[in-house]
Amino acid sequence: MRVNPDVPADTHPYISTGLHRHKFGIPIGDALRVYHEAAKIKHLKCCGVSVHIGSQITDVQPFEAAMVRVADFVRELRGRGHQIKYVDAGGGLGIDYERQAGCNFSEFASAYAKAVVRPIRALKVHLLLEPGRAIVGPAGILLTKVLYRKKNDGKRFLIVDAAMNDLLRPALYNAYHRILPIQGLREQTEKVDVVGPVCETGDFMARDRELPIASEGDLLAIMDVGAYGMVLASNYNSRLRAAEVLVDGKSAKPIRRRETIADLLRAGG
Amino acid sequence: MRVNPDVPADTHPYISTGLHRHKFGIPIGDALRVYHEAAKIKHLKCCGVSVHIGSQITDVQPFEAAMVRVADFVRELRGRGHQIKYVDAGGGLGIDYERQAGCNFSEFASAYAKAVVRPIRALKVHLLLEPGRAIVGPAGILLTKVLYRKKNDGKRFLIVDAAMNDLLRPALYNAYHRILPIQGLREQTEKVDVVGPVCETGDFMARDRELPIASEGDLLAIMDVGAYGMVLASNYNSRLRAAEVLVDGKSAKPIRRRETIADLLRAGG
Repeated sequence: MRVNPDVPADTHPYISTGLHRHKFGIPIGDALRVYHEAAKIKHLKCCGVSVHIGSQITDVQPFEAAMVRVADFVRELRGRGHQIKYVDAGGGLGIDYERQAGCNFSEFASAYAKAVVRPIRALKVHLLLEPGRAIVGPAGILLTKVLYRKKNDGKRFLIVDAAMNDLLRPALYNAYHRILPIQGLREQTEKVDVVGPVCETGDFMARDRELPIASEGDLLAIMDVGAYGMVLASNYNSRLRAAEVLVDGKSAKPIRRRETIADLLRAGG
Repeated sequence: MRVNPDVPADTHPYISTGLHRHKFGIPIGDALRVYHEAAKIKHLKCCGVSVHIGSQITDVQPFEAAMVRVADFVRELRGRGHQIKYVDAGGGLGIDYERQAGCNFSEFASAYAKAVVRPIRALKVHLLLEPGRAIVGPAGILLTKVLYRKKNDGKRFLIVDAAMNDLLRPALYNAYHRILPIQGLREQTEKVDVVGPVCETGDFMARDRELPIASEGDLLAIMDVGAYGMVLASNYNSRLRAAEVLVDGKSAKPIRRRETIADLLRAGG
């Protein structure tokens, strides 16, 4: 259900969802009629209200405003005989890809919880949440090796062995991911584009980024790739998708092997 | 090699390649030094010059201008003792995704051939071309079925069973692909967004497109998807990549089977 259709979320156009021009949801003004229709179908039980207002929202106010409208709607539904037991507050909880000073995620999560719960507490509903990115995003790191250093008319490039087929977010959303050197921080920095080996200008991990000077063979960690990372990976340029390793404290376990050429050809057999 | 670094091609930023800010190639001013260096390596033969000026170029003048500079450079290399036998003119030959009136591809291809050959004819080199998109782009069609019709506050959507994981070009490049109904043209049209079932606003095939009115179950052909189509497909939203069928006149042969859930899990075993 779309709650706040006239207020664009402060997000990339591709990850804003709650606007009239978007395909998602049912306008709240139409929703009552839809519940009545659905209630007539004997194989359906109408027992919940679900809302999703957008992605990467880092202010709790829009969540609270949405839940106020959801709470009103639940009361209206109950008043008309619908047994509403569940409210799904959807996702949208943003993470701070740039780790800017002053941001504390656990404080934000706590404020989010209060904002979401306050308007619906008296309803005694079962609350569902879908904060996928906030949970898995920071848990993923893409490890990559510097293949070459290159200079074109003064502009510097690090060409790494990860590419847009491995992590599409920079190309697709112009997304920012922190990049950290694995071998300890060098003091001297330089401004570089970090790019992959794919034959496309959109194949970049970072542009005009001030990074500690890295040499060929150095390993870099591309941070916060646990959400919309591997799931958007492709075999573009006949590249094999990466292996995945689950790290738990000091133990590490491979959970997905690197693809092989045989994997690429399997469906063509 | 980049030839024309200060003139942006009239292309999406992600498919322009020949600018200073891009990772590709060696600036022509540095190339002579690089040939001298390479010639010292006994396992290498320096026998060609390769250039690529960009993608989706629909005017032959930039190709001719590039080849004039390549020809000059080949003469300079030969004058300094390099045995240059090959010139690779790269790709970049655009196709008209919108099929606008007045465009004739075979006339354009013929003009392109003359523009590329004229400056180098006297050099007696072996000419290589890489017009991949122009050959395979129009050869591919993505067949999709209308799952639902939907209206949100007056805006109309066709929700189809193909999604951004099948064809990323609209989301990635804001690319235009013609969409034709399979079951014969209805006369009446309507303005719709054609969108997929993936949970993302960027999951669209066309926006605000005037199309013949389609019903649930109708088949649509998304045209010109042979280049940067299947090769950019992913398993996003755990979706299985599509089957591919080779059509030759009246015969049709499956050349890639639809993926299965087992394929998705294979590398995690």
